[in-house]
Amino acid sequence: MQASQIVRTFAEVRSNRLFETFVVSVIIFSAIVVGVKTYDIPEIVAQIVHILDWLITVIFLVEITIRFIGEERKRDFFKNGWNIFDTTIVIVSLIPIDNSELAVIGRLIRIFRVLRMVSIIPELRTLLVSLIKALPQLFYVVLLMFIIFYIYAAVGSTFFSEINPELWGDIAVSLLTLFRVMTFEDWTDVMYETMTVHGWSWAYYITFIFFTAFAFLNMIIGIVVNVMEQEHREHMQEGFENEHKELDTIKNELAEIKLLLQQQANRQA
Amino acid sequence: MQASQIVRTFAEVRSNRLFETFVVSVIIFSAIVVGVKTYDIPEIVAQIVHILDWLITVIFLVEITIRFIGEERKRDFFKNGWNIFDTTIVIVSLIPIDNSELAVIGRLIRIFRVLRMVSIIPELRTLLVSLIKALPQLFYVVLLMFIIFYIYAAVGSTFFSEINPELWGDIAVSLLTLFRVMTFEDWTDVMYETMTVHGWSWAYYITFIFFTAFAFLNMIIGIVVNVMEQEHREHMQEGFENEHKELDTIKNELAEIKLLLQQQANRQA
Amino acid sequence: MQASQIVRTFAEVRSNRLFETFVVSVIIFSAIVVGVKTYDIPEIVAQIVHILDWLITVIFLVEITIRFIGEERKRDFFKNGWNIFDTTIVIVSLIPIDNSELAVIGRLIRIFRVLRMVSIIPELRTLLVSLIKALPQLFYVVLLMFIIFYIYAAVGSTFFSEINPELWGDIAVSLLTLFRVMTFEDWTDVMYETMTVHGWSWAYYITFIFFTAFAFLNMIIGIVVNVMEQEHREHMQEGFENEHKELDTIKNELAEIKLLLQQQANRQA
Amino acid sequence: MQASQIVRTFAEVRSNRLFETFVVSVIIFSAIVVGVKTYDIPEIVAQIVHILDWLITVIFLVEITIRFIGEERKRDFFKNGWNIFDTTIVIVSLIPIDNSELAVIGRLIRIFRVLRMVSIIPELRTLLVSLIKALPQLFYVVLLMFIIFYIYAAVGSTFFSEINPELWGDIAVSLLTLFRVMTFEDWTDVMYETMTVHGWSWAYYITFIFFTAFAFLNMIIGIVVNVMEQEHREHMQEGFENEHKELDTIKNELAEIKLLLQQQANRQA
Repeated sequence: MQASQIVRTFAEVRSNRLFETFVVSVIIFSAIVVGVKTYDIPEIVAQIVHILDWLITVIFLVEITIRFIGEERKRDFFKNGWNIFDTTIVIVSLIPIDNSELAVIGRLIRIFRVLRMVSIIPELRTLLVSLIKALPQLFYVVLLMFIIFYIYAAVGSTFFSEINPELWGDIAVSLLTLFRVMTFEDWTDVMYETMTVHGWSWAYYITFIFFTAFAFLNMIIGIVVNVMEQEHREHMQEGFENEHKELDTIKNELAEIKLLLQQQANRQA
Repeated sequence: MQASQIVRTFAEVRSNRLFETFVVSVIIFSAIVVGVKTYDIPEIVAQIVHILDWLITVIFLVEITIRFIGEERKRDFFKNGWNIFDTTIVIVSLIPIDNSELAVIGRLIRIFRVLRMVSIIPELRTLLVSLIKALPQLFYVVLLMFIIFYIYAAVGSTFFSEINPELWGDIAVSLLTLFRVMTFEDWTDVMYETMTVHGWSWAYYITFIFFTAFAFLNMIIGIVVNVMEQEHREHMQEGFENEHKELDTIKNELAEIKLLLQQQANRQA
Repeated sequence: MQASQIVRTFAEVRSNRLFETFVVSVIIFSAIVVGVKTYDIPEIVAQIVHILDWLITVIFLVEITIRFIGEERKRDFFKNGWNIFDTTIVIVSLIPIDNSELAVIGRLIRIFRVLRMVSIIPELRTLLVSLIKALPQLFYVVLLMFIIFYIYAAVGSTFFSEINPELWGDIAVSLLTLFRVMTFEDWTDVMYETMTVHGWSWAYYITFIFFTAFAFLNMIIGIVVNVMEQEHREHMQEGFENEHKELDTIKNELAEIKLLLQQQANRQA
Repeated sequence: MQASQIVRTFAEVRSNRLFETFVVSVIIFSAIVVGVKTYDIPEIVAQIVHILDWLITVIFLVEITIRFIGEERKRDFFKNGWNIFDTTIVIVSLIPIDNSELAVIGRLIRIFRVLRMVSIIPELRTLLVSLIKALPQLFYVVLLMFIIFYIYAAVGSTFFSEINPELWGDIAVSLLTLFRVMTFEDWTDVMYETMTVHGWSWAYYITFIFFTAFAFLNMIIGIVVNVMEQEHREHMQEGFENEHKELDTIKNELAEIKLLLQQQANRQA
């Protein structure tokens, strides 16, 4: 009995608006701390920042504990991906790292704490979920694009690897070079270099640009059309369903009228 | 009595088409004067321009005064953001600035007078208002994008600050560099430089480009879908409402018929 | 009588498919001739090309004459913009130009003959007309964009003209530089240069990019929504109108039924 | 009888899911082999890769044979474009090529085997078909764009060929340069170079960018609108057709009611 009361109390704290605002403030503050650390700061400030860092970690630990205790079924807590993410970030930042090589990982974890912003603010969470939901429908266009990239990279490293090994040395480097060409980043420099040896190579670049641009365009159009159709369909459905209901009442009315007429006919017969 | 007559007269002047055309012409002329001043002009022309500048200021002062007097409730005048903007611009350009350092501000104010074009032409005003209205719905996507930027900037200045302090020295500079990468502006130069030290850094750039491109795309699609749904909904609603009315008249007709039949049945009974 | 017969004969020739195909072929051939002339060609080929050039001009002259004679009302011929365009191109290419300076204009006219492709093929004509029709609705967005450009150019040439006069010397040059910045073409080079003097100037570029990108985006969205609404409305209207007709017949039926019932009631009374 | 049984057995194998998964795995494996070959690999690995290459060819040969035997009407097999593509790829990779010049073609064929991915996975096939279907409706916009390109290229090589023959030497090179300008790739470098001789040439580039951007935009909008209208129409049609059916049943009901009333009237008369 007492245990469930504690759960209720913590659940109340958890959904309290002040608590949420406080956590968001701490996250923003931790982001500022992350930013400050990138500047050349005097030793004293560095030490203050270090203390603040641990303070933030402690606050996060307390916060996660409150959330955990506030959960009625403890299992459900870890079914939520955001909770797992939050807990991992906090636990990893608790590990004291002195080794200079691992220190980098410690710093990265502290940076990733900013991502807690997304797990705290519901609107961002919804946004991210909707972004991720849009991914599967892109799978085949991305696959097709990768096939185009892969074939062009293989052709590129077959023909151009001796011209400029840094750009076309092997298939991995060629893929990077092609990504660069797709973003139009100094792609003519790449082209002019290979054209000195293979005069036809402009065709290679231009067909590649056309194929990827075309596939990319179709991807965008696909998403736009998909999203709109979905929203639109829902709205239309509403309109048509309302009409359907109205037409149904009319049909019922007609059925009643017919019944009345038939009764009349029977009476007269 | 006389006062309200003056108000009416000035209100008439204010909404007079000739008056509006004249003010627009003066604004265009002030824009040309602003343009002329950027050229190397002989002393005499500079003096003429200087006089014209003051003439424009005087005309604007008169115009604003007419508008103010033409307003029935003087308070309402300053409730309109455009009026405040216009008045501020005109008053600030009245202050005589001799100090060479402040002279720059004087020149800027004269440039911003061109913005009065927006406050005068109603179509531009509507356009700007609709642009600004579109902003709030972008808030969370922009926030998400900023979080992505911030995390990448923190990671970037952690790892690359020693490679090129001009690009990755601190988080502010890193944010600028990442904005540059997002516009694809010589992003490969930035990448190749960090790849000489951290071979894996291509993944940093490519994931960044993917994330921002994806978020950006979703932002655009979000706006397109939103705007269209709105317009569409309005139009559809019209169609469905018209049908709804027609179906209603049919229902009424049916009710009348049923009544007639029931009356008949009653009479026969 | 005889004259109208000639008109009819020529009108028939004019709308003859073979005639059209022949003219299109000649235009394509003239385009090839234009292309050939850009290569270093031996003297003999140059002379052949010169003769072909005159041959094409003669064929075009004959063609235009046929079109003109085939027109029933001679005035209508010059009411059609495409006819005026065709005639001008042909007449100007008839003028013999020996003066070397004017020779360039002669060459340009021969290049612009390729544009006759658009005036001959109806689908291209429709496409161009629809493109031009889309322009007026863009007027205010373009105006707003120009105001943004103009203000930024004035500010730019005020502050940066001494840093790099080639990029920011006067307002015209600044406008060109800003257009370059909008296309993201080496915009960071421009920015880094001014940042050495004015450290705050990154804000100038980034706000400019945001404003123009935002205005540009709104322009595109505006067109997309506009075009779709138009097509959509037409199609929806069709659907709703069909339903409206059906509902009307239902109403008429109901009116008839009511009449029958009222007649019955009258008879029974 | 026995022959048709064999056909049936092979047809079963062909549509077996395990068989399909196996073929896809082999294609992925062949893609990896293609990738591996682009690296500097020791002789032993190279020989293993060579053997694997032949193994893949043999597996593909067996697979195609199974497909062919599994086809009931042998003629239909070659009516399917994908089958022709698959067979060609496999047969050409069977030809032993020792000649070093032709060896390149052999390598290319092995690269193009990755494209079999598209012919095997139905979703990719559908995607590609829908992409290709979108092409014809683009024909006239592409033609218009080509005309714009051609005219600008002709003008460009007329005026700028002496300034930089590598960029503007003849019409083919000019077309490539203009494509570069369209992708905004260092277009200002090209412009500043020609502006030193022809001061007006900024107008050439800016009008070109405007025209192509405008045509390109219209192309995209055209596709978006087209695709959406199509999907939308289908969906709307469904809604309207459902309503049409409902309205039809209402009409029939009304006809029945009228008949009943008329019979009543006749009886009373």
